[in-house]
Amino acid sequence: MFCCRPVFWMGKDTLRVSAALFAENRQRLCLGLKAKSDLNPRSVVLLQGGEQKQRYCTDTDVLFRQESFFHWTFGVTEADCFGAVDVDSGKSFLFVPKLPESYATWMGDAVMWTIADVLTSKNPAALLTLRGLNTDSGSICREASFEGISRRLIKTDMELEVLRYTNRISSEAHKEIMKHVKPGKKEYEMESLFQHYCYSRGGMRHTSYTCICGSGHNSSVLHYGHAGAPNDKTINDGDMCLFDMGGEYYCYSSDITCSFPANGKFTADQKTIYEAVLRSSRAVMAAVKPGAKWTDMHRLADRVHLEELVKAGILHGDVDDMLEVHLGSVFMPHGLGHLLGIDVHDVGGYPEGVERVNEPGLRSLRMGRLVQERMVLTVEPGIYFINHLLDQALADPAQSCFINRDVLARFRGFGGVRIEDDVAVTATGVELLTCVPRTVEEIEAFMAEAEGKSFSA
Amino acid sequence: MFCCRPVFWMGKDTLRVSAALFAENRQRLCLGLKAKSDLNPRSVVLLQGGEQKQRYCTDTDVLFRQESFFHWTFGVTEADCFGAVDVDSGKSFLFVPKLPESYATWMGDAVMWTIADVLTSKNPAALLTLRGLNTDSGSICREASFEGISRRLIKTDMELEVLRYTNRISSEAHKEIMKHVKPGKKEYEMESLFQHYCYSRGGMRHTSYTCICGSGHNSSVLHYGHAGAPNDKTINDGDMCLFDMGGEYYCYSSDITCSFPANGKFTADQKTIYEAVLRSSRAVMAAVKPGAKWTDMHRLADRVHLEELVKAGILHGDVDDMLEVHLGSVFMPHGLGHLLGIDVHDVGGYPEGVERVNEPGLRSLRMGRLVQERMVLTVEPGIYFINHLLDQALADPAQSCFINRDVLARFRGFGGVRIEDDVAVTATGVELLTCVPRTVEEIEAFMAEAEGKSFSA
Repeated sequence: MFCCRPVFWMGKDTLRVSAALFAENRQRLCLGLKAKSDLNPRSVVLLQGGEQKQRYCTDTDVLFRQESFFHWTFGVTEADCFGAVDVDSGKSFLFVPKLPESYATWMGDAVMWTIADVLTSKNPAALLTLRGLNTDSGSICREASFEGISRRLIKTDMELEVLRYTNRISSEAHKEIMKHVKPGKKEYEMESLFQHYCYSRGGMRHTSYTCICGSGHNSSVLHYGHAGAPNDKTINDGDMCLFDMGGEYYCYSSDITCSFPANGKFTADQKTIYEAVLRSSRAVMAAVKPGAKWTDMHRLADRVHLEELVKAGILHGDVDDMLEVHLGSVFMPHGLGHLLGIDVHDVGGYPEGVERVNEPGLRSLRMGRLVQERMVLTVEPGIYFINHLLDQALADPAQSCFINRDVLARFRGFGGVRIEDDVAVTATGVELLTCVPRTVEEIEAFMAEAEGKSFSA
Repeated sequence: MFCCRPVFWMGKDTLRVSAALFAENRQRLCLGLKAKSDLNPRSVVLLQGGEQKQRYCTDTDVLFRQESFFHWTFGVTEADCFGAVDVDSGKSFLFVPKLPESYATWMGDAVMWTIADVLTSKNPAALLTLRGLNTDSGSICREASFEGISRRLIKTDMELEVLRYTNRISSEAHKEIMKHVKPGKKEYEMESLFQHYCYSRGGMRHTSYTCICGSGHNSSVLHYGHAGAPNDKTINDGDMCLFDMGGEYYCYSSDITCSFPANGKFTADQKTIYEAVLRSSRAVMAAVKPGAKWTDMHRLADRVHLEELVKAGILHGDVDDMLEVHLGSVFMPHGLGHLLGIDVHDVGGYPEGVERVNEPGLRSLRMGRLVQERMVLTVEPGIYFINHLLDQALADPAQSCFINRDVLARFRGFGGVRIEDDVAVTATGVELLTCVPRTVEEIEAFMAEAEGKSFSA
């Protein structure tokens, strides 16, 4: 199964991905569908690939990135295709656009499809029929939500290999950032360097999401880095940095956050908050295994955070009482983690009929299933000091009674800390895919030693 | 007018852009509209800004880039806005989304608009009305094609300053590539380095278009670098490189192509073709001035190419006869150049009623106007050896009679050469915005001297 020639390879030391990966996915898709009692005989799965788009009404092509369901099923990087899978026989059909002769002048020789067991049809009649069918429903791609495709949340060996690769390269890129960061640099210089490392060393042309490069106060803005807040602050001495960045290889994602002081040396307060988050991260990792409830993992992180905030003197009182009034979500308003795969927030987090828990924090959790072997998940606890959430808590007697106002005041403007790793669930626990310095000692030693050393472009 | 505080600045040595740039654009818009005899009294221009999009049906935000007409008029970087200009009074109104309170948690403090003379309305009623109006026509942005906006093709002093900046940074980035390129590297390593330089040094988060990094045969593929041909070839000794890349600052474009040998030393054939293109480039630049016909400039380039191909022994016969049968378009199938501004192929190339010349080559020309002062244009002649076009020419007796088959055979696989500069039209000629080594001697000297020297990330 691994012997096929690679269908995707960016050369040099980058990963060779076999077409067999997608053949196995299609096989799993058919098995899943056949297991359904209500499957119609002679069923065919029809998927529309991504379409090449332009910027608004211009002729500037947006860099194409394949639609995720289509990629999972066919592994085709080109735009404007359709694909079909005959469930009974397992045979696949790929419908590629009929290209005008001038294509070769502008875009190069037409693609030679390499997917071994996919039949290529250039029959324009068949193609036009398919297009006609789909145009009826508008050009908007809809989520392919039938049962078989939910197998995407269970990763095969070949998929795990790709996810290990995206994590390895992205981890190395994060370490580059830790070598280069220093007060006076712009946050976006770090974003640029991360992307450059991932692409030039790892062949990763896309990131999995817009890079979040928050320093100082910005490290408490959960989705910092967007066009309205484009990583444009100067990094200051004393800033906590929270860099959440992941490269994507052949559409497979990674999602990693490193938090560290800009100057390489933790202050006492930074160490306190950082180690609080690290303890919850490691507590969760020790508890994740097949059968564990992911909502329990989120609650576990909340509990550890609150225990540590009591030790730090920011809170006082009984942690169980604090959990009753959802005090944890004041400091971690997001979910503990999510499925990861071809999408950074991969599909299938909630099976049909399971709703999100409607509580602060938990309602942001993107995964509500029991943990299963071969799931890939992020574990990303964090503690943030977000002014308007602190103000709300202080205004709410049920929460403010636990807060030591004077101590908390010291942490206004601190920003936040998140520690995010990607893990693959094994039979008994997890395999940690991310490899970056994590303890305070490791980070300080790495940043001190690394000064001035860097990869040459 | 230049005294306002900058509305956009990426810090360090990057360019400060004043809000006055857009105030002047709106003024020009109103003047243009008022000059129309059929303008309705009390007219209001209503423009929809770009909307934040997600990848397909996922929750992954695509990095937002403002819609070009909206940017030209308002200079706002944020998504999901509307803007209106009252033509009589010149007053402007900006309608920003009413953000939920949780926005601050995820995206940071809400934007404080800095555009001095734009009134900010957070009145949700007004906002909803506008949205309602526009939803009727679907969510697709349509080209704003009324007369006033065509002033976009004439650049103000402040716009020229931004375009000089994008060209300077992108020129420096191209020179970085010429320092780093060598046989054994991947084409995409050069793309990555170009982007890294533009972003980390120039604050340019976007490129104006997908980078074209063709080496060897790929240098003859006009739009190489797309997802189906993703700059993934290894650069070989003896390859001609054609790198067409431009960075974008605050939505203003640049568009530059450098062609050079991968190993820094031209072969005799490479020198011949390169100098043929350089002569046509410089002949065109010497001829461009207000009142010149752009189609004539294209024809001039064709003529020089054919003269040079005769000297090189690839063609024989009378150049006027060759022009009759459009032989030039076999070697340069694209247009000579286009308007440049907020879009890389900027709007307004053909005034109402003027059609493209329906001849090979010229029908690809994106600009059919007379040249005017303050236009910014690309001058980008090229000679390519594209197999299927050569085969067509050889099969056509009207063209093949001019071709020395044996000599041409030597150039199969050569690839192509393009020399692309951006120019601003002055009262008497052009200002060259691009600054890179251009003669064979300059390129060889620069690449020899540059070895091992590079900017540190």
